[in-house]
Amino acid sequence: MIEFEYYNPTRIIFGKDTVPQTGPAARAYGKKALFIYGRRSIKETGLYDRVMTSLKNAGLEIVEHPGVKANPLLSHARAGVELAKKEKVGVIVAVGGGSVIDEAKAIAAGTVTDTDIWDFFEFRAEIQDALPLVTLLTICGSGSEMNNGMVLTNEESQAKFGLRALPLYPKVSILDPTVTFTVPPDQTAYGAVDAFSHVFEAYMAREDLDTPIQEGIMETLMKTVVARAPQAVQDPRNYNARADLMWASSLALSGITFSGGGPLALPCHMIEHALSAIYDMAHGEGLAIIMPGWMRYMSNEKRGVMKRFAQRVFGVNTLEEGIETLEKWLEYVKCPVRLSQVNIGEGEIPKLTQNAYQLAQVWELSDFYAPEVIKEILRLCL
Amino acid sequence: MIEFEYYNPTRIIFGKDTVPQTGPAARAYGKKALFIYGRRSIKETGLYDRVMTSLKNAGLEIVEHPGVKANPLLSHARAGVELAKKEKVGVIVAVGGGSVIDEAKAIAAGTVTDTDIWDFFEFRAEIQDALPLVTLLTICGSGSEMNNGMVLTNEESQAKFGLRALPLYPKVSILDPTVTFTVPPDQTAYGAVDAFSHVFEAYMAREDLDTPIQEGIMETLMKTVVARAPQAVQDPRNYNARADLMWASSLALSGITFSGGGPLALPCHMIEHALSAIYDMAHGEGLAIIMPGWMRYMSNEKRGVMKRFAQRVFGVNTLEEGIETLEKWLEYVKCPVRLSQVNIGEGEIPKLTQNAYQLAQVWELSDFYAPEVIKEILRLCL
Repeated sequence: MIEFEYYNPTRIIFGKDTVPQTGPAARAYGKKALFIYGRRSIKETGLYDRVMTSLKNAGLEIVEHPGVKANPLLSHARAGVELAKKEKVGVIVAVGGGSVIDEAKAIAAGTVTDTDIWDFFEFRAEIQDALPLVTLLTICGSGSEMNNGMVLTNEESQAKFGLRALPLYPKVSILDPTVTFTVPPDQTAYGAVDAFSHVFEAYMAREDLDTPIQEGIMETLMKTVVARAPQAVQDPRNYNARADLMWASSLALSGITFSGGGPLALPCHMIEHALSAIYDMAHGEGLAIIMPGWMRYMSNEKRGVMKRFAQRVFGVNTLEEGIETLEKWLEYVKCPVRLSQVNIGEGEIPKLTQNAYQLAQVWELSDFYAPEVIKEILRLCL
Repeated sequence: MIEFEYYNPTRIIFGKDTVPQTGPAARAYGKKALFIYGRRSIKETGLYDRVMTSLKNAGLEIVEHPGVKANPLLSHARAGVELAKKEKVGVIVAVGGGSVIDEAKAIAAGTVTDTDIWDFFEFRAEIQDALPLVTLLTICGSGSEMNNGMVLTNEESQAKFGLRALPLYPKVSILDPTVTFTVPPDQTAYGAVDAFSHVFEAYMAREDLDTPIQEGIMETLMKTVVARAPQAVQDPRNYNARADLMWASSLALSGITFSGGGPLALPCHMIEHALSAIYDMAHGEGLAIIMPGWMRYMSNEKRGVMKRFAQRVFGVNTLEEGIETLEKWLEYVKCPVRLSQVNIGEGEIPKLTQNAYQLAQVWELSDFYAPEVIKEILRLCL
């Protein structure tokens, strides 16, 4: 086992009918809350009203910052920082999926400093502190509700960057699987693919480690997502399916899977970020396209771990069958598995490569992931 | 999945040569430390000197409270509280196994209040606060380094009671597998059995839950302990074996295994506590005797889960083979599996039953575990 530090102080409140706990959880950290959410869905489903009732009943003053986009934008986060500073809020309440929670983290960090938040993403400054954050998860996948990472897109430079910092752990995250009953099939699938990919990338990062605990936990999470995603897609009110997808997503990036396995590299994410930064497609959708192509490219380099993956996660014998079964599963939950299916042709590859390589440098993956390597992986995704 | 709260804020520092981090970790919480440890072993192995150096280098004033026994005693913990109050220590450093860490938790809780600590164990008072605690683990098994539980023996009433409370999570736990290279084979085995039992009891508590995440994690941990314990017993300096036993022990009671599975019942522990309270035997030794007998008694009631356990953990087909294989494994690591092997005869059963039933009432298990049930389980352990 590789040496590691594991620290995850987020309090999880998991179960049916936990939405009313949002207000009291937030009130423990402040009197005035910045309430961050997305665009339409929480109003359409009635969740907005339930959260407002809970916040008001807990005696909180509420400042709203709606309109977070699916790939949250720097400009919108900056506006949130300005609002939070002006209104002197003491706590942030994020109701949404990974995008809302990520933007909430950026605002939480930006509000307590004069540093511009993009400086954190380009590692020109370090996050020392943040406002307390309470989240209520509405779409599973990113795991942001139980980790200290965030991703933001700078729309000027088309850069989609991510970072981790200790003060970014939510204080409390409320996970009510019934809230996700209304998530449409495509978004359910994309979220599941995102969660799967977090475990997949951690699993693939390590070739020869004799670490049965981490392997077993990761195989369990991947198998669970593989089994549950189709159930949730086909039967949106299947509680056990929704609950397992939710908890698997949260655990996937909580640290428990990769502690002891050395540094976590996310090459599929790195390449996918270029896709969703440029084309504004769903992150999980992009990952569904990249993962099989990446596997094909790396299949010599990572023969052992990929074969084990094929056998233990999908119950097939060979690496090649593993890739095939992964693709079949992705197609079964109606994800694209080729760039051509989302109308991206070979002509786009140089632009995508350039964008992904930029992130490879920031994430210190560029030694291996040179432009020609990224290009070749993208070609295998066509 | 059953609703749950998961919260575990202990920071884990895991790996070779992490002992020198003890001082800086403690210094972050106070200037004066109560240094708690056991009897001989940390002086014999040189660990005492390494810890003292680290504490001194970090600029800490040190007050020592040595002499914690294998089943820590209330009187010794009370003396620690008195010392900590008199010396006005700001942080507690526990270097040892579960006994040392448990007593350190009791002292941490007792120092910040006028309540006598035994009142907490009999639920006459609630723990509201505790001194910060930094632990350095020397014997794996109890999981106390990464949870908020503690067990203490009241030598006057021969009661061995346990409780959990939020302020009892260690702030930092330092897990250096090389520190356990010197743990003798018997204690290595008892610790492994203790860790195994924590997962085993959580696994057995739930018959019909459709919770693949928790099941998979628990099966992984049990399989790991089953594979690694003999390796560590036979080759004490096997790093991977020691590391996996250490991390499996910590995760076993960290909350990650039983969150979502409903309340955690520990009937084997309940009965074992009577054994180690009265006969001062090692906790893991007692558990090795109780678990197979408990399985035989419960084999009708819990057919489904016990069969699954047999198949997935031991790779055998039937419940009966599962019990047999468990016993063989326990014998292979040189644990007793019958009361007769530790010279406890049928005549002792009434006394043991009475003691265990006392705890059954405190733990609210007495509806099922009536005296005649406990008696019958003990008879199956003869």
